[in-house]
Amino acid sequence: MDTIKISSFELYDAVSCGDEEELNDLTSNRVFLQGWVRTNRNNGQIGFIELNDGTYFKNVQLVYNKDNPNYEVASALRNGCAVEVIGSLKLTPENKQPFEIEVVEISVAGECDEDYPLQKKRHSFEFLREIAHIRPRANTFQAVFRVRSVLSFAIHQFFQERGFLYVHTPEITTNDGEGAGNVFDVTTHDTKDPFEFYGRKVNLTVTGQLHVEPFALAFRDVYTFGPVFRAEHSNTVRHASEFWMVEPEMAFCDLNDNMRVIEDCIKYCISYVMEACPEEMKFFNTMIDNTLLERLNHVVNSEFQKMTYTEGIKILENAVKSGVIFENNDIKWGMDLQSEHERYLTEKIVKGPLFLIDYPEEIKAFYMKLNPDKKTVAACDLLVPAVGELVGGSQREENYELLKAKMDKLGLTEGLEWYLDTRKYGGCVHSGFGIGFDRLLMYVTGMQNIRDVQPYPRTSNSIKY
Amino acid sequence: MDTIKISSFELYDAVSCGDEEELNDLTSNRVFLQGWVRTNRNNGQIGFIELNDGTYFKNVQLVYNKDNPNYEVASALRNGCAVEVIGSLKLTPENKQPFEIEVVEISVAGECDEDYPLQKKRHSFEFLREIAHIRPRANTFQAVFRVRSVLSFAIHQFFQERGFLYVHTPEITTNDGEGAGNVFDVTTHDTKDPFEFYGRKVNLTVTGQLHVEPFALAFRDVYTFGPVFRAEHSNTVRHASEFWMVEPEMAFCDLNDNMRVIEDCIKYCISYVMEACPEEMKFFNTMIDNTLLERLNHVVNSEFQKMTYTEGIKILENAVKSGVIFENNDIKWGMDLQSEHERYLTEKIVKGPLFLIDYPEEIKAFYMKLNPDKKTVAACDLLVPAVGELVGGSQREENYELLKAKMDKLGLTEGLEWYLDTRKYGGCVHSGFGIGFDRLLMYVTGMQNIRDVQPYPRTSNSIKY
Repeated sequence: MDTIKISSFELYDAVSCGDEEELNDLTSNRVFLQGWVRTNRNNGQIGFIELNDGTYFKNVQLVYNKDNPNYEVASALRNGCAVEVIGSLKLTPENKQPFEIEVVEISVAGECDEDYPLQKKRHSFEFLREIAHIRPRANTFQAVFRVRSVLSFAIHQFFQERGFLYVHTPEITTNDGEGAGNVFDVTTHDTKDPFEFYGRKVNLTVTGQLHVEPFALAFRDVYTFGPVFRAEHSNTVRHASEFWMVEPEMAFCDLNDNMRVIEDCIKYCISYVMEACPEEMKFFNTMIDNTLLERLNHVVNSEFQKMTYTEGIKILENAVKSGVIFENNDIKWGMDLQSEHERYLTEKIVKGPLFLIDYPEEIKAFYMKLNPDKKTVAACDLLVPAVGELVGGSQREENYELLKAKMDKLGLTEGLEWYLDTRKYGGCVHSGFGIGFDRLLMYVTGMQNIRDVQPYPRTSNSIKY
Repeated sequence: MDTIKISSFELYDAVSCGDEEELNDLTSNRVFLQGWVRTNRNNGQIGFIELNDGTYFKNVQLVYNKDNPNYEVASALRNGCAVEVIGSLKLTPENKQPFEIEVVEISVAGECDEDYPLQKKRHSFEFLREIAHIRPRANTFQAVFRVRSVLSFAIHQFFQERGFLYVHTPEITTNDGEGAGNVFDVTTHDTKDPFEFYGRKVNLTVTGQLHVEPFALAFRDVYTFGPVFRAEHSNTVRHASEFWMVEPEMAFCDLNDNMRVIEDCIKYCISYVMEACPEEMKFFNTMIDNTLLERLNHVVNSEFQKMTYTEGIKILENAVKSGVIFENNDIKWGMDLQSEHERYLTEKIVKGPLFLIDYPEEIKAFYMKLNPDKKTVAACDLLVPAVGELVGGSQREENYELLKAKMDKLGLTEGLEWYLDTRKYGGCVHSGFGIGFDRLLMYVTGMQNIRDVQPYPRTSNSIKY
């Protein structure tokens, strides 16, 4: 009789796919598993251990009997400890779980102290946030961080399949975004000149876009995917000071092409996660938000609608006239829409994903392309039900004179001469967009707080790790 | 007659794969290409444009004749400008290039000023570093950044295929590595308390390892892949202050298992790049280092050897006795090996990749597992010919008492209580390693300066973008 080393993922796969030969092999030999005890209970005659080895969302049930020489060892195992177990695979198609492992031998591979903070009872997310190094073992976070990994890979896969070049844009930069002052400085211990390392003032990046545009003008289709930073004291469930951004940029690509890529990308990512993580998604739908799967399926099967900002404002004005009450009811052209307005348009009006396009120049970033009306820019924000804005994109101003005049006016030219250069040297029509990865993950999982989708959340006034 | 929009990658693919029907389709219709003029020459009768659209390493040759109504437009096109062209595909199997495009219509999609810095002559890497926003259009950097993207994806693919979970470890952290002072502080503009944002002193991370270990103890196999930072004034061709690290971590994994994964990973990544980027790799072998492909093939086909540090020291001692001269000739047990020593062992002794294992405790990091001899730790550095160290790994100290005693001695415990915790709660045998991604890229491309493999290099006293 052989002992076959196997993971719980492989076990579930073998049992559910039901390859006869492989199953025979597993049931007629012994299996060897390594993992952590989630729970352990026994009635003095027979005991049950829920084992999780991290490779699969579901636990494996271990059964041990009074007459097992390891009974004492097994029954003394505390929640959280690491074990190695040799056992026999028994198929139990009549039971809720399709198989169990009858323990032959079990041993401790890592003890767990009695004060283990993850006990069987249900813990609040607030409590679990305080133990960010332990919470990955809790069900919700097993699901969240698995989906985080799969969603990251889906993004790479989407762009790589389409020939996009992945660019690592820098984290430390001299460019402080739009000079809004919400950046983190990067300094050294030199108290006389904390910026001496690079010889000038530097800060953490707020976006990779400016650095990735020159690559689009060399490689056509490119993307950056990495951490960005905001030193904003926004203590909300959707703001973090460090988060990951996906920023694709495409040459010879106008606003309409841009929207096509956004739509394809969002649909691809959602479909990818639903297919790769069915157990996790079922869990979210049951425990976190029972409209989740319906909502995601709806998005995947929708054709995304388009509406100009100006049309949107008219609809909102009419809504107010007909009695709809927003927190900000003072609707007028030129205003920055709030989440409540965005949600009204996407949830009540189009009842699905909506690109709102052609925003007033004043409320959008300097690099967006001025439309022929000279009042609006070729921007597109993707709004989705239940959340509001999910993606922001635009065609870029490729006209050197227009862009320079605008940057001069805003005092942004100095230090960004290289960025302006790209418009002098073969700077064709190009567009791009940004997806806040952590917010996309919240959207895909139904999780309500950004602190619960980041491995070690970085929010204002809170840092422990 | 139709006009078929196509990229140069698709064109080369169609011509070289030779699907009859597709080729017929392309030659009997017209093709539409968008890209940038690399060179443009004509003799008054006939002109040739080398067009590159960023999707493929090789250019597409456009041919235009005097009798073409667009002759004036075509002949005036300057290097660097963006164009759109409609033309006829002509197969030229007898020529060096397997096809050319006879121009029917051509138009400017983005002008290029006369002072375009990339002219036909060969530019030095030093010069190109000064125009980091333009150099992606130069051959060498087309190749470097394509391989950078492909190599990044190869790493994700390798780990995802094996079920590893991708973890985004934080960039901003309270952990300052080993307190060596070579970290960048992260501050805000508040001059009274620049650290007020988080309420305590924070810095940029030097490694994701400590943060990823707790995830290995929940998910078994995990990896982090992101930027890390070192505020070291090491002005060498191999040091940058910002670079990307790959850091896998595996539970139930000892030093030998760890080395197996390292070997598989390195071989996988090299093979992947050689297969996905044949033109780029040919270019590097011709223009940068003509031993490159031979060296990489050798690594892929080698079985990596193992040698203890103690054996290595003996061999180096004997080498010195027999007349070998190192810059540091004072070989003794306990010393930190220099690149020259590592290269001697890998190049002269084993003539291939070599894991040097079981280093003296004093010269390795605090978290490495103490061996039974109480003098060495279960570390493994992978040394390769022409470079020296490529990967560093170790089994981690899972014994709480030993680890705590060591951290106490080094004054590292405060602030890292959470890290110690992992040894109290099911902390089993586990191991991991780190690959400096930029150095791996240098190794795979033969590029000699880290400034020439980073999109916007970040080195001491130099920052422009």
